[in-house]
Amino acid sequence: METVILKRDDKIKRIQTVGEVRSQVKKWKMQGLTVGLVPTMGFLHEGHESLIKRAALENDKVVVSVFVNPTQFGKNEDLGSYPRDIERDELVCKRAGASLIFNPEPSEMYCKDASTNVSVNGLTEGLCGSKRPTHFGGVCLVVSKLFNIVTPNRAYFGEKDAQQLAVVKKMVQDLNFDIEIIGCPIVREFDGLAKSSRNTYLSLEERNAASILNKSLNLAKEALDSGERNANIIANIITEKLNSEPLAKIDYIEIVDSLNLKPVHNIHSSILVAIAVYMGKTRLIDNFTFKLQR
Amino acid sequence: METVILKRDDKIKRIQTVGEVRSQVKKWKMQGLTVGLVPTMGFLHEGHESLIKRAALENDKVVVSVFVNPTQFGKNEDLGSYPRDIERDELVCKRAGASLIFNPEPSEMYCKDASTNVSVNGLTEGLCGSKRPTHFGGVCLVVSKLFNIVTPNRAYFGEKDAQQLAVVKKMVQDLNFDIEIIGCPIVREFDGLAKSSRNTYLSLEERNAASILNKSLNLAKEALDSGERNANIIANIITEKLNSEPLAKIDYIEIVDSLNLKPVHNIHSSILVAIAVYMGKTRLIDNFTFKLQR
Repeated sequence: METVILKRDDKIKRIQTVGEVRSQVKKWKMQGLTVGLVPTMGFLHEGHESLIKRAALENDKVVVSVFVNPTQFGKNEDLGSYPRDIERDELVCKRAGASLIFNPEPSEMYCKDASTNVSVNGLTEGLCGSKRPTHFGGVCLVVSKLFNIVTPNRAYFGEKDAQQLAVVKKMVQDLNFDIEIIGCPIVREFDGLAKSSRNTYLSLEERNAASILNKSLNLAKEALDSGERNANIIANIITEKLNSEPLAKIDYIEIVDSLNLKPVHNIHSSILVAIAVYMGKTRLIDNFTFKLQR
Repeated sequence: METVILKRDDKIKRIQTVGEVRSQVKKWKMQGLTVGLVPTMGFLHEGHESLIKRAALENDKVVVSVFVNPTQFGKNEDLGSYPRDIERDELVCKRAGASLIFNPEPSEMYCKDASTNVSVNGLTEGLCGSKRPTHFGGVCLVVSKLFNIVTPNRAYFGEKDAQQLAVVKKMVQDLNFDIEIIGCPIVREFDGLAKSSRNTYLSLEERNAASILNKSLNLAKEALDSGERNANIIANIITEKLNSEPLAKIDYIEIVDSLNLKPVHNIHSSILVAIAVYMGKTRLIDNFTFKLQR
């Protein structure tokens, strides 16, 4: 029998202050070690775990930030009820090969008179940005801060938040962060539902119905694979499937250029097909990228 | 006779690409050397030189960026006519102890589809910010980029641009840049005029008249030293003196809290007294800080 030994730290540090994170990362860098960052809002699921594992494969040390970032929530969103379980998160991080959890209080991240904004235009206007106008500003702000605190060589983001990934990549390019941004594939439940911390909000009935998101995307994928290039027809296929589920309420269905996220009508480049759907009060998102040679 | 040997590099590198700067700085950091950054728009005068000398005293290596940053100029401002002389700048940098000049083309700093903004609210609303609404956004953007490209231990800014210094300090705090921001005193001509690259715009007559800025501030300082605590009276003293010079046209006279830059009426904390005055078409600024124990 072959024994596989994964590169894992037996101990994992949970740190709450910026100063201690800096000091630990500096020690690692002095030793010539590379650092991967996985920014999360905690309540880690297998999607996060896949990011941490990938980071652990590609870097000597992995920092996971667990921070429910207030600045990326809108006024009527679920900041207060967002699920939290730091003890469980610590186990997941340890199992997946992380070395450090950065779990600051909001007051450690934002001083009272904080007044700096970071924003990316264009990419943030459509998709989730049109319904959540302050969301990506909050994401850019916290990600900038985490980048400056952790100074990672690489940072890992899930492709489930496709617009976030595009926005972070653009910000890194525009602000010259010396950090490689790595997008990782969506991890799904047995029935195709994309893993999300927000899935815990779903009632049993809603949870069963929620597989409709991925099913509708799969129909769209089939049509694209069969040569359909009319974005309206693709959108209609998704709409029809989603509407077949009484519990699902469509927020948006968007077919956009995968780079600039601008709406596409005739598909002749790589596209992102992204949807947001309410299941009861819970807003779920899913997407896929369809690659076409330009 | 004692010989004083200043720490100076005989060779100075002039680099135009982000990649080469990064690579040079990484070599230095691998050797455990510290790096000071002096961000400038070139056409260096003794004010800049004092920043470079200070940086050379406090760091092993000094990077001077020479970049006339388009994003901090308004539409009707002097981007096109801003004075440039990179050969002379190189001599000044060498003499003052710099190791590297970063002198990128605008296309190296800004890609065509650049769309990220960095801004600081509050601090940027009054003073120069009210007349130059896009200026500090441009400053924050380019300074963020330079910080990420050069990753200095310390960065040096002149106190002449007092609002800029306050804004950069706030941005560094809010975005967790691990960089010490050091403000350096205003360097003046023989008659008190603050050194500025824009002084070269002045006709001989305007140049002679321009000493009125500092003279008016000196009167204000005398009044404060004598115990005057009414900001209106201080402002009137400055106004009267400036109005005694026919070539001077007041843009603003502001007496603000030195930390939050909010207008002060009764002076019971440290204040910044800042003025902007047109001499012909040339807009000059000057200021001083009056320290009071809170």
